[in-house]
Amino acid sequence: MGTRLSSSRLYRHLWGTPELAGVFDERAMLQSWLSILVVLAKVQAEVGIVPASAAAQIAAEARVDALDLDFVAEQTAETSHSALGLIKGLLAVLPAEAREHIYVGATVQDVTDTWFGLVMREVGAVVWRDLRALEARLVGLAARHRDTVMAGRTHGQLGAPVTFGFKAASWADEARRHIERLRAGRARWVVGQLGGAVGGLGYFGAHGPRLRARFCAELGLADPGISWLTARDRIAEFGTVLAMVCGTLARIGGEVYELARLEIGELAEPASPEGVSSITMPHKRNPERSEHLDTLARLARSSAGVLLEGMVAAHERDGRAWKAEWIAFPEVCQLTGASLSLALELLDGLEVRGEAMAATVRRYQRELGSERVLAELAGRLGKHRAQQLLHEVLRRDGADLVTALPALGVATAEEVSCWQRSPSVDAVAEMVDEVCRRAAEARAAEPEHWT
Amino acid sequence: MGTRLSSSRLYRHLWGTPELAGVFDERAMLQSWLSILVVLAKVQAEVGIVPASAAAQIAAEARVDALDLDFVAEQTAETSHSALGLIKGLLAVLPAEAREHIYVGATVQDVTDTWFGLVMREVGAVVWRDLRALEARLVGLAARHRDTVMAGRTHGQLGAPVTFGFKAASWADEARRHIERLRAGRARWVVGQLGGAVGGLGYFGAHGPRLRARFCAELGLADPGISWLTARDRIAEFGTVLAMVCGTLARIGGEVYELARLEIGELAEPASPEGVSSITMPHKRNPERSEHLDTLARLARSSAGVLLEGMVAAHERDGRAWKAEWIAFPEVCQLTGASLSLALELLDGLEVRGEAMAATVRRYQRELGSERVLAELAGRLGKHRAQQLLHEVLRRDGADLVTALPALGVATAEEVSCWQRSPSVDAVAEMVDEVCRRAAEARAAEPEHWT
Amino acid sequence: MGTRLSSSRLYRHLWGTPELAGVFDERAMLQSWLSILVVLAKVQAEVGIVPASAAAQIAAEARVDALDLDFVAEQTAETSHSALGLIKGLLAVLPAEAREHIYVGATVQDVTDTWFGLVMREVGAVVWRDLRALEARLVGLAARHRDTVMAGRTHGQLGAPVTFGFKAASWADEARRHIERLRAGRARWVVGQLGGAVGGLGYFGAHGPRLRARFCAELGLADPGISWLTARDRIAEFGTVLAMVCGTLARIGGEVYELARLEIGELAEPASPEGVSSITMPHKRNPERSEHLDTLARLARSSAGVLLEGMVAAHERDGRAWKAEWIAFPEVCQLTGASLSLALELLDGLEVRGEAMAATVRRYQRELGSERVLAELAGRLGKHRAQQLLHEVLRRDGADLVTALPALGVATAEEVSCWQRSPSVDAVAEMVDEVCRRAAEARAAEPEHWT
Amino acid sequence: MGTRLSSSRLYRHLWGTPELAGVFDERAMLQSWLSILVVLAKVQAEVGIVPASAAAQIAAEARVDALDLDFVAEQTAETSHSALGLIKGLLAVLPAEAREHIYVGATVQDVTDTWFGLVMREVGAVVWRDLRALEARLVGLAARHRDTVMAGRTHGQLGAPVTFGFKAASWADEARRHIERLRAGRARWVVGQLGGAVGGLGYFGAHGPRLRARFCAELGLADPGISWLTARDRIAEFGTVLAMVCGTLARIGGEVYELARLEIGELAEPASPEGVSSITMPHKRNPERSEHLDTLARLARSSAGVLLEGMVAAHERDGRAWKAEWIAFPEVCQLTGASLSLALELLDGLEVRGEAMAATVRRYQRELGSERVLAELAGRLGKHRAQQLLHEVLRRDGADLVTALPALGVATAEEVSCWQRSPSVDAVAEMVDEVCRRAAEARAAEPEHWT
Repeated sequence: MGTRLSSSRLYRHLWGTPELAGVFDERAMLQSWLSILVVLAKVQAEVGIVPASAAAQIAAEARVDALDLDFVAEQTAETSHSALGLIKGLLAVLPAEAREHIYVGATVQDVTDTWFGLVMREVGAVVWRDLRALEARLVGLAARHRDTVMAGRTHGQLGAPVTFGFKAASWADEARRHIERLRAGRARWVVGQLGGAVGGLGYFGAHGPRLRARFCAELGLADPGISWLTARDRIAEFGTVLAMVCGTLARIGGEVYELARLEIGELAEPASPEGVSSITMPHKRNPERSEHLDTLARLARSSAGVLLEGMVAAHERDGRAWKAEWIAFPEVCQLTGASLSLALELLDGLEVRGEAMAATVRRYQRELGSERVLAELAGRLGKHRAQQLLHEVLRRDGADLVTALPALGVATAEEVSCWQRSPSVDAVAEMVDEVCRRAAEARAAEPEHWT
Repeated sequence: MGTRLSSSRLYRHLWGTPELAGVFDERAMLQSWLSILVVLAKVQAEVGIVPASAAAQIAAEARVDALDLDFVAEQTAETSHSALGLIKGLLAVLPAEAREHIYVGATVQDVTDTWFGLVMREVGAVVWRDLRALEARLVGLAARHRDTVMAGRTHGQLGAPVTFGFKAASWADEARRHIERLRAGRARWVVGQLGGAVGGLGYFGAHGPRLRARFCAELGLADPGISWLTARDRIAEFGTVLAMVCGTLARIGGEVYELARLEIGELAEPASPEGVSSITMPHKRNPERSEHLDTLARLARSSAGVLLEGMVAAHERDGRAWKAEWIAFPEVCQLTGASLSLALELLDGLEVRGEAMAATVRRYQRELGSERVLAELAGRLGKHRAQQLLHEVLRRDGADLVTALPALGVATAEEVSCWQRSPSVDAVAEMVDEVCRRAAEARAAEPEHWT
Repeated sequence: MGTRLSSSRLYRHLWGTPELAGVFDERAMLQSWLSILVVLAKVQAEVGIVPASAAAQIAAEARVDALDLDFVAEQTAETSHSALGLIKGLLAVLPAEAREHIYVGATVQDVTDTWFGLVMREVGAVVWRDLRALEARLVGLAARHRDTVMAGRTHGQLGAPVTFGFKAASWADEARRHIERLRAGRARWVVGQLGGAVGGLGYFGAHGPRLRARFCAELGLADPGISWLTARDRIAEFGTVLAMVCGTLARIGGEVYELARLEIGELAEPASPEGVSSITMPHKRNPERSEHLDTLARLARSSAGVLLEGMVAAHERDGRAWKAEWIAFPEVCQLTGASLSLALELLDGLEVRGEAMAATVRRYQRELGSERVLAELAGRLGKHRAQQLLHEVLRRDGADLVTALPALGVATAEEVSCWQRSPSVDAVAEMVDEVCRRAAEARAAEPEHWT
Repeated sequence: MGTRLSSSRLYRHLWGTPELAGVFDERAMLQSWLSILVVLAKVQAEVGIVPASAAAQIAAEARVDALDLDFVAEQTAETSHSALGLIKGLLAVLPAEAREHIYVGATVQDVTDTWFGLVMREVGAVVWRDLRALEARLVGLAARHRDTVMAGRTHGQLGAPVTFGFKAASWADEARRHIERLRAGRARWVVGQLGGAVGGLGYFGAHGPRLRARFCAELGLADPGISWLTARDRIAEFGTVLAMVCGTLARIGGEVYELARLEIGELAEPASPEGVSSITMPHKRNPERSEHLDTLARLARSSAGVLLEGMVAAHERDGRAWKAEWIAFPEVCQLTGASLSLALELLDGLEVRGEAMAATVRRYQRELGSERVLAELAGRLGKHRAQQLLHEVLRRDGADLVTALPALGVATAEEVSCWQRSPSVDAVAEMVDEVCRRAAEARAAEPEHWT
């Protein structure tokens, strides 16, 4: 049982997903490291650095299930070396012949950075899949509510009308850009690392570059061309893109959170039959998912900041920056996974209360019609004169334009009333269409899986 | 096994201490929560809100060992309520009479914030103790090396001389200020929280304020006077002070890291007999502790940032900020614990290589004597004229002042030579004395334990 | 005209105050630096390092008005030395005798850190004054609205009732803790710095420590005892406390922002006769001050983060961290000044709409009475049974408890109705009293000016 | 004269470039805003919203030179509206006919976001150009020093050898990825914004979408398809990429800073004839540019963090996030410009001291040969046995492997001596070639200007 809530039995579901636990759980991580060592031995056997038989034995035996993890942990602490505990654990289970041929010539960071490459492949695929699923839902919402008129809000205040589809389209459009970022970044991220001591491949003599090429190929990773032990832009970029994804989801969550206020009531989180919002106020139905999206985004940003800082690494290897990534990188990945999964759940059952939206629109005609009245008057009086006049009229609190403007002789009561009742949302709906069109086009042209 | 390295069996020793695991480990945390509930029932029994017999039963039975934590975890996820899983787990083990009298009128955050108060008391005490132990070592180093002359370095370049004691005194002085911060903050931090639904104590009717007073007193916490569910400055401040402590330790670590470069070799980390620095370069002796102090400080700062952001909370309770604290607050506490423990270990065996320091001083006489030569010449020529003249002479790379200055008729070779050989470190040593004196005075006047 | 909006003619009022411009404006800053040099020469004259006549001339002539700032700027860029341009500018205006006696033995950072000490004294005094003024207003609001009942809100949803005074008291209480922090920190912050080359005072030979003591005393700053050129905790702490102050003000702003939504309308920003909220929607009255408090807090936190990072400085002087402070430190000071000034303005005219608050309370009786109904039923059925029953009843959306509970035989319609109508806010009012009492007591015991 | 050092006459060259001052200087910014208004009027004339003659007059008269900026500033403060001051200034200089046709239907953020689009186009072009120039220098350094053997360093300690070309290639490779990021992002960033009140284009009725298309086209910006007033990922991404660029440059700077230590002396910053490093220590030659690259990266990261946070914006417009961008976005742009310009200057005259590098290599043969000795022994004894043996031998401090290994019968003195003398850097050189090849290929395939 861990000392971090994110690893706790009770609360870990809030900070990760079972799927990503399958990547980051200690056993999964160690198995992944072992698989990297298996591949290392295999390609070293190809060029004759280790015997083929030893490589085969390693492939057969280097399984996390075989290891005595308590011994590994104890040795890790005792040697204060990140990998030596694991190596000792392996030596204890490998056949004698294989023992001398495991982890040959590689440095710890070769394994962990290659693992980062694999992690980015796996996490990137999850994020790609979930972002596209999210986009699909958002595009669906946008299309479905293309004409569901509701109040626009700026600075927290009611403004001209939009439609709920317009909100959803804005989210979909943002999600689409994240999908593009993922596509463009993949080749930069899904790479391996092999370099030995200082990243110079010196251990392997003439075989070095070819060995790395084979190593990467075998793992399905691109060959980086040059060691990136202190070139951490890949990690910083991946982490930042994920933090941005969380930012978008927090924006969606924030909108639900605010519009689900009882006083507004235009959106509501899906009701869950077993869910209990409050133990002190039985009536409560808290927007827990929406709010948690914000929490996750805060933490994701924070971890991304650590990764950005880590770019300023020294020399050929720099534990200061690198070890900070050990914490921050898995963190941002899992927070993003949790965030996407939560957002999908939120959207799946999101209640869009068209009637409440319409009620707001009706109730606040003066506010929602304000832009149109200005536009119409501007056509008659000029923009600034119209503005000036309206400011003066409206400053007298509660001024009824339907009465006030005719009194000033600038419009009839019918006109004002009509302008206020029917501000245009045509352009808004056109924007929805455009976003949906672009999404459909992009989706058709791209693979379902992240490749 | 967790999905975070900080909770992993292999690596958790890098990100926390066993002592603080005893605070933050899930079982320890839950036991602490249960103890809070026990106290709640106890004081509620005093005012007649729950029967005394129920309170007694709760005190007897609300133990984490009794709970089925898998069931608790499952119910936490299913209800998606932070406390309901725990409550259901408790109901399953409490005697029938007690069941209806547990967790009465309190909101989740009452428990977790009160726990934060207890955590600050415990963690603060550890930090106080370790900071004072650190100060003791630093003052010891300062006194011992009061006159161990070494090169000063500014902008990474050799400058006028200092002593190693001066460096240690600068660290001690900074540690002292943290000790002061801890002392001044305690009364603000070690407080309880009880408010119910919206923090208004409404559930308890007329008993509210007295109940809270008793609740806090029983737990050894101060009564906050008013609910602080969304007044998070305490948490932000505590976290920031801890991040600052880590910053100081990283500064110490950074100095060791740099001066332990083989090309400098003036400091070295304690050698550990079993320690292995490198699996690819057997000769390596990496400054792992020093470097890890920097890693820990980065992460601590990052968590403190989350806590600062959390101050902007909404209304009477705000899960967005609060839940982010759930991650960031234990994090910064444990990172600081790890950091202090590591720093103590580092200082305990720190090798201060006086002869290497002296060798640098001898080798770079020109550089180290530069300030004194300027001072002496300034006495003769005026400051800016002396400066100008020296800049010109020195610009001719490698210029030997012992030859060049006599040639210009501004000093004899003996003078220049003497100035270069013996720049003054008297004031430096006086500063060491002053810091030691202040520390001794402050230590004598303060308690050993944080109270 | 600057390249930063914060320095721009049009917008600088958003990011600072005229008062603090008087500290940070380039001329003011340079004058402050010159005054430090004047004091330096004066105390050096006392110990015979420079002639008294030269010190007197420097005191007479080292005025920013006398300098050719274009020349100073040009020389600063050309020499790429931070102080040499200024020195050259001074040499051009000082009498011949004084020229060689200006800026003797001090390093640039001696001047700028001493200036930081002066800045902390000035800014701290402003923040102290404004925080106390803020507290006075908040305590006033708390007392005035001690019994102005309004809905409590948690997770953005309506909960049990509080009073507006309770909100204001929570803010006042938080402000009080900032005032305490300022008081406790002053002695740490308001210090001078003099050390020369590497902070060792070597230039001044035997005079060093005494010179520094006189230098600090003359400037009204404490003597630090030891150079703090790379011990940056003072700056980090001061900056962090300011960022926390901004956090509190942003919390206040956020509350106004949300409760000023038209759909809620319980608070409103002061109307300004000339103010125009929107050029496209004449009806708008945006909560611009409230919103800007949030903006300022974001930026302040960001700068505080830079200062925290700067604590990890190297050796005896480290330009990397120090120069970052040059930007971040004045920034956080000015943002805080702007923030306090804006908050005072906001509070001065804040409209507290008691009738709207009462309307919400009436309209949402079911929600606001929820905690009390639970408490009452719990007294009859036990807490968890009552909870369970209420959850079930309320899950049937819109369930009317006044009908439903009597139907279940657990309460009469009159009882339910009464509970819903009159949840208790007595304890809330007591908390207000307690905060007001504490504030009054603290205020009476502390000086009006920051000392 | 500003209140921020970044805008100060003396120091602004440290925080920006004259070229970017031409973008961000207040006059330049205002002129850019006016040009946007000119285009707005022009395209509105096309669809008949404003008279063609008014649009022509606006095009002729809306020049910053014509404005009374003091009046504009005063009106901005008085109305507390971001654009109204400017509008009033314009009204004062426009012919009567044009007055009512300026700034029609657009909201402030339409202008400032469109300006952000223009800014990204201009700044992106500068960054593209400078990054490619940087890459050219780095590739040049890499090729020139492909075989300049030097010590590798990990954890600050000497390790196996690399070449200086390898370091430069690692930087070039990282720069290349930034160039790719810029290329991939351009289409996302260089967009306009027009939406009016709530971004819905309602003011313009049926003309809306076509008007925006024409508006964007006329400005050379892409049409965003949908308003992005609260979809801030573009800004966050652009800012983050810039902060990453600064991170890379700080990494380069850091390497120079460390290797320019006198005790190492393998690199040196270009000497500048007029440059003065220290006024207290005439001998000093501080790595000021290297160090400042780190300072700039800290600040850039900090601003990027503000932009990331800004993604969580509310509703259709949110001043809290948006106004923070007003500060943070120009900041990160200018810091990056300064950083690139400084890095180019640093690289242009960088002294690569091959002889000092060779001296280190000779002096620390034992350390640099360590990996090769291990590799050779591993071939004979197996990896872990060899490792174990070497750890034991080397633990006896100062052990001479040339003596010790023959004594153990595992190698002859000649062999050990040869291994230590000639560890392989062949693979390192191959990596250099690969990076140069990739860079050449990529450069040939891409435009010189950012398009």
